[in-house]
Amino acid sequence: MEAPYDLWYWPSIQGRGEFVRLFLAAADIGWRDRAREGDAQALVEDMEHRAKNGFAPYAPPYLVERETGFAIAQVAHIVTWLAEKHGRTTGDTATDLHLIQLQLTITDIVAEVHAVHHPIASSLYYDDQKDAAKTAAEKFRSERIPKYFDHYERALGVKDGPFMAGESWSHVDTSLFQLVEGLRYAFPQRMAAIEPGYPRLVACRDAVAGIEGIARYLDSERRIAFNEDGIFRHYPELDAA
Amino acid sequence: MEAPYDLWYWPSIQGRGEFVRLFLAAADIGWRDRAREGDAQALVEDMEHRAKNGFAPYAPPYLVERETGFAIAQVAHIVTWLAEKHGRTTGDTATDLHLIQLQLTITDIVAEVHAVHHPIASSLYYDDQKDAAKTAAEKFRSERIPKYFDHYERALGVKDGPFMAGESWSHVDTSLFQLVEGLRYAFPQRMAAIEPGYPRLVACRDAVAGIEGIARYLDSERRIAFNEDGIFRHYPELDAA
Repeated sequence: MEAPYDLWYWPSIQGRGEFVRLFLAAADIGWRDRAREGDAQALVEDMEHRAKNGFAPYAPPYLVERETGFAIAQVAHIVTWLAEKHGRTTGDTATDLHLIQLQLTITDIVAEVHAVHHPIASSLYYDDQKDAAKTAAEKFRSERIPKYFDHYERALGVKDGPFMAGESWSHVDTSLFQLVEGLRYAFPQRMAAIEPGYPRLVACRDAVAGIEGIARYLDSERRIAFNEDGIFRHYPELDAA
Repeated sequence: MEAPYDLWYWPSIQGRGEFVRLFLAAADIGWRDRAREGDAQALVEDMEHRAKNGFAPYAPPYLVERETGFAIAQVAHIVTWLAEKHGRTTGDTATDLHLIQLQLTITDIVAEVHAVHHPIASSLYYDDQKDAAKTAAEKFRSERIPKYFDHYERALGVKDGPFMAGESWSHVDTSLFQLVEGLRYAFPQRMAAIEPGYPRLVACRDAVAGIEGIARYLDSERRIAFNEDGIFRHYPELDAA
């Protein structure tokens, strides 16, 4: 497949980069995972080089349009930019703006997911903040997951069809897929207990899994496994029904 | 002044709503602070009503265009939408996209600022997570503020002029103003120590303060004071040079 984009992200985790990959996969757009061709150091050097030459990403992931060299960062920004560029908007301005809003709220929950296992500082080891993480996880499971899921379940009821905007998938759906997958990995007991209350969200996740480009991607070696260096981490002591 | 917009936000704090207010003030666009005309309960009821009737905000602030009833949430989304609508973009697509990216990174740091005093859960009292907050604050002061400030200081050096895009202010500048003001309130010792290293950021803050609409707003009763219910809170035990 032709690869008009370079994706730069930490090579050994799905992390935030995965939300970009899933959009590209669903839309059948090719990309190179640049830091996986080299290593994390290549990414650090690329970022330093960009920082010396004008507006630069604050952090990975960022996507580079190879033809122009234009670089764009921030997951919600990247996928909404791609959606506009590759005809994956609905054409209805109010709906498209709502989709961006829903995507930005996924950004919020993803930051909270990371903060569950690193509540005090991302630069400290998990083991050094495990007690705080246990309380954070309890609150996240009991208060935050239902609050966010209620929001998305209701939003999925606005239009007919498995996806947020109806019959056609959008960047929100591919991100919701990853959110559900990640939470299933991190909190399997909690998700098993709560999922029956969110049939639309589960149906949306299933419909995304059925998109041809997504199915092909998930089945490929490019989809690396969740692991305990990423955002969604499975620490059994942080999970409960 | 004519008020084409209703802003809905918690009535007793600046909070995230303030980033929207500052943009509106700088652009001389009128708005009503709806929850301040009533109370927090009016806001809760308005949100519940919206949630029953289609796509709705996940959380305040949200802005309602009075003529159409269209509601938009998420600070970065609101201010970039306003910028486009009211001619406050640069007209250069790459620059405008970079401005959105820079605004989204302000969203990230604002979430981190709140997490400093509520590291374990936003639903727990500060006093019940004070020890964790002390460690979180130490890391935030020593690692996170410089990392974010380095990023913005460098970005401010790309174009000539006090503002991010050069001579004309953008939504990024009004938000950076609030970020600096908030951090000065929350961490006065740390900011006094670190600010000399960030002359462009301070110059940008000063230039925003000099925008006529901003000066008028800051001088008005609509600018309520920072307080310990908001995002930027001054707890002396969390500050140090």
